[in-house]
Amino acid sequence: MTPSQALPAVLDRIDADLDKSLERLFAFLRIQSVSTDPAYAQHCREAAEFVSKDLASLGFETSVRPTGGHPVVVGKAPNGSGPRVLFYGHYDVQPVDPLDLWDAPPFEPRITTLPDGRKIIVARGACDDKGQVMTFIEACRAFKAVTGKLPLPITMMIEGEEECGSNHLFGFVKDNAAELRQDLALVCDTSMWDPATPLITTSLRGLVYEEVRLTCADRDLHSGIFGGAAQNPLRVLSKILAGLHDDNGRVTLPGFYDGIRELPADIKQDLAGLNLTAEDFLAPVGLKAPAGEKDRMLIEQIATRPTAEINGIIGGYTGEGAKTVIPSHAMAKVSFRLVGGQHPDKIREAFRAFVRSRLPVDCKVEFASFGTAPAVEVPFDSPALAKARAALAAEWGRKALTVGEGGSIPIVADFKNVLGMDTIMVGFALDDDRVHSPNEKYDLTSFHKGTRSWARILAAMAE
Amino acid sequence: MTPSQALPAVLDRIDADLDKSLERLFAFLRIQSVSTDPAYAQHCREAAEFVSKDLASLGFETSVRPTGGHPVVVGKAPNGSGPRVLFYGHYDVQPVDPLDLWDAPPFEPRITTLPDGRKIIVARGACDDKGQVMTFIEACRAFKAVTGKLPLPITMMIEGEEECGSNHLFGFVKDNAAELRQDLALVCDTSMWDPATPLITTSLRGLVYEEVRLTCADRDLHSGIFGGAAQNPLRVLSKILAGLHDDNGRVTLPGFYDGIRELPADIKQDLAGLNLTAEDFLAPVGLKAPAGEKDRMLIEQIATRPTAEINGIIGGYTGEGAKTVIPSHAMAKVSFRLVGGQHPDKIREAFRAFVRSRLPVDCKVEFASFGTAPAVEVPFDSPALAKARAALAAEWGRKALTVGEGGSIPIVADFKNVLGMDTIMVGFALDDDRVHSPNEKYDLTSFHKGTRSWARILAAMAE
Repeated sequence: MTPSQALPAVLDRIDADLDKSLERLFAFLRIQSVSTDPAYAQHCREAAEFVSKDLASLGFETSVRPTGGHPVVVGKAPNGSGPRVLFYGHYDVQPVDPLDLWDAPPFEPRITTLPDGRKIIVARGACDDKGQVMTFIEACRAFKAVTGKLPLPITMMIEGEEECGSNHLFGFVKDNAAELRQDLALVCDTSMWDPATPLITTSLRGLVYEEVRLTCADRDLHSGIFGGAAQNPLRVLSKILAGLHDDNGRVTLPGFYDGIRELPADIKQDLAGLNLTAEDFLAPVGLKAPAGEKDRMLIEQIATRPTAEINGIIGGYTGEGAKTVIPSHAMAKVSFRLVGGQHPDKIREAFRAFVRSRLPVDCKVEFASFGTAPAVEVPFDSPALAKARAALAAEWGRKALTVGEGGSIPIVADFKNVLGMDTIMVGFALDDDRVHSPNEKYDLTSFHKGTRSWARILAAMAE
Repeated sequence: MTPSQALPAVLDRIDADLDKSLERLFAFLRIQSVSTDPAYAQHCREAAEFVSKDLASLGFETSVRPTGGHPVVVGKAPNGSGPRVLFYGHYDVQPVDPLDLWDAPPFEPRITTLPDGRKIIVARGACDDKGQVMTFIEACRAFKAVTGKLPLPITMMIEGEEECGSNHLFGFVKDNAAELRQDLALVCDTSMWDPATPLITTSLRGLVYEEVRLTCADRDLHSGIFGGAAQNPLRVLSKILAGLHDDNGRVTLPGFYDGIRELPADIKQDLAGLNLTAEDFLAPVGLKAPAGEKDRMLIEQIATRPTAEINGIIGGYTGEGAKTVIPSHAMAKVSFRLVGGQHPDKIREAFRAFVRSRLPVDCKVEFASFGTAPAVEVPFDSPALAKARAALAAEWGRKALTVGEGGSIPIVADFKNVLGMDTIMVGFALDDDRVHSPNEKYDLTSFHKGTRSWARILAAMAE
């Protein structure tokens, strides 16, 4: 019996086992695995042991591996044929403060019902990431129960420091590359488009972050004496930064858009169909109009197009009242969100050349780099992506979107750059899940249909 | 005998009396009249009494008038015909720290000789302003000795808070306007062009100082989520500030240059003859090239042309390392140095309109004003100016320059605006006088020929 043939029975098993699967999730949620606070180190270890034991019960060969911080759980189940996948998630959770804003204790999970009738699981970590991780594990469990084995070779890597920067994971992945390198990575730590529409995150923007320091005179000057003749670094800086965008919102760095591929027509049409409006996306933060490239949809501006942003400027007198100073120094922090095809090093050099070419006599510049990371993209013609989309569509009765995410998930970039794997990011979080906030929740539907979704995805990939 | 007829004898008397005039100056310099430090209040009072007593000995009707701070000495000698003048100076001095950098105690005045042979008077206040004030008083004393009276009606106003902001003087001038209003004001608190070239300061630039606060989103945003779509106030601010100057260094505010008169050709030629170079003026602060209006001489850029300066900018993340924030707010401080013909209120409104007209949707602005002051100018056709120039030329054997000063002297603006008087600013300070610093000095030549200069100016004005 192939995994596809077994799928109907696996899905029935998931339905029948829902109450017990919730009990298992609740046991996981009761562990206070707050990773940022050293006082909770023992709870983090307990969560790692919980995951390890659970995976062992499914036939994984597990180990709780030490790092410089909290341990990483690795589970290996090389059985079966088909592509080998690495599943990544994290067992650690955010701190719970402010505790008084919780309606019930954060580590006492419970099911409640929203006014609109949705049933929800409420607890710290209900969504991020314990609930999401368990959708995958429960799908594995159902396969094991129905077929006696997992549907394809799976390696699990569940870390305990995602909420405090994954500091030790990068080295861990590098040190264990041979063992962790599979054909494909799967991650369950992202969101749906809305409660009815599944979504696969197919790209993450990269980043170049630069600090620019300009110096003109060798001291601060009085504008009554030098005003009119002395070069002012704030004037130079304004001029340079003002030149970063043209009137159509395009970034003006030479070669900035080189190598960027247009989205396939059907994907672009899907995005257009979402009709993401400024009213939906910007109004909640007090804004009205998209400020990016004028010929791009809002969804493109935030997800699939590169940007240049001024993150900070300081120089001269910024206290109360007046001081007629012409400062010696001025500083800006400038960052670029990158998409596929852009080379971080080239963008950084283009930016530095852009600044240097605009420096007048009497203005010196120093740069500092605070990070360069390429974008991550799943090719739209990836067979795994096509299978995941079809599987999600079958479960949710609606086409699965493929959307880029505007920010970075550094470990996914490492999967590509260190391990050479693409990552399919599927998640069932919703915008109202209050992730990182009091009363974090996960819809029961996300948990239940999320589990069924992974069963379908695994069956499809095993083909 | 007219003052002009008496002048040769008056000048002889000044020469003959030099030693005694130095003794009087030294007595004045020994008084520790540091105005910023309340511990020296009694010394300030003592200095006021010293001046009052000395003026009384010359026939002035004197009074030491209380203010909210240190007293103002007023002396009135309405005798004689001719234009009525108000002489302004100050008896207070700067603090002396760091004391260990003085070669001798700062309140023990002495004569020393520089390596180039110049004899100098060294003490705190030797130049600023006790030495300069005494050049005027000694000229008056010589007239009194030779002719038995002062050469024209003179009112003296010697204050004690110049070094700490003249806070109480503005109200004092307003409250005593009828008494202080004369035909012309004379001030001895400025510099020569160089040790051989006398200078009359004929204009002081005015000021408009604005703070601009921009707000876009109602909170700081994450550039991974909103980058590309959310308006960034630092980008808006850079664009606006970059637009304040054109490529030729001219300020672009509509109407900014309206009403400005060109310097008379002969005055401009005098300035050109000075050949003030970037090497002279900018190299000492580490700069090479004048950054102002390209078609203007350096001396014009700093003295007689208006400017726009960015005095400060702050917004977003300015700490160590990286933060991918799109800030909600950005702030800049911008000031304009004004020259004759420009109206501060119009410039302020032009600036605000300039900013408002460049605001995109989703960007709000608030302004704060930290001062508006018009420029002060002595008309080049003023008969008093012509007389002072001729008198200085006669004394120094060289044409007296008329140059504008780049900064403001607020009380001189008040003389014009509150009392309706022009001010002739003549001073004998030199660039190496170390004013406000340890080992402050005044050239013996400045003191001696300065006194002779005032005798000549007073004689000329009495005609």
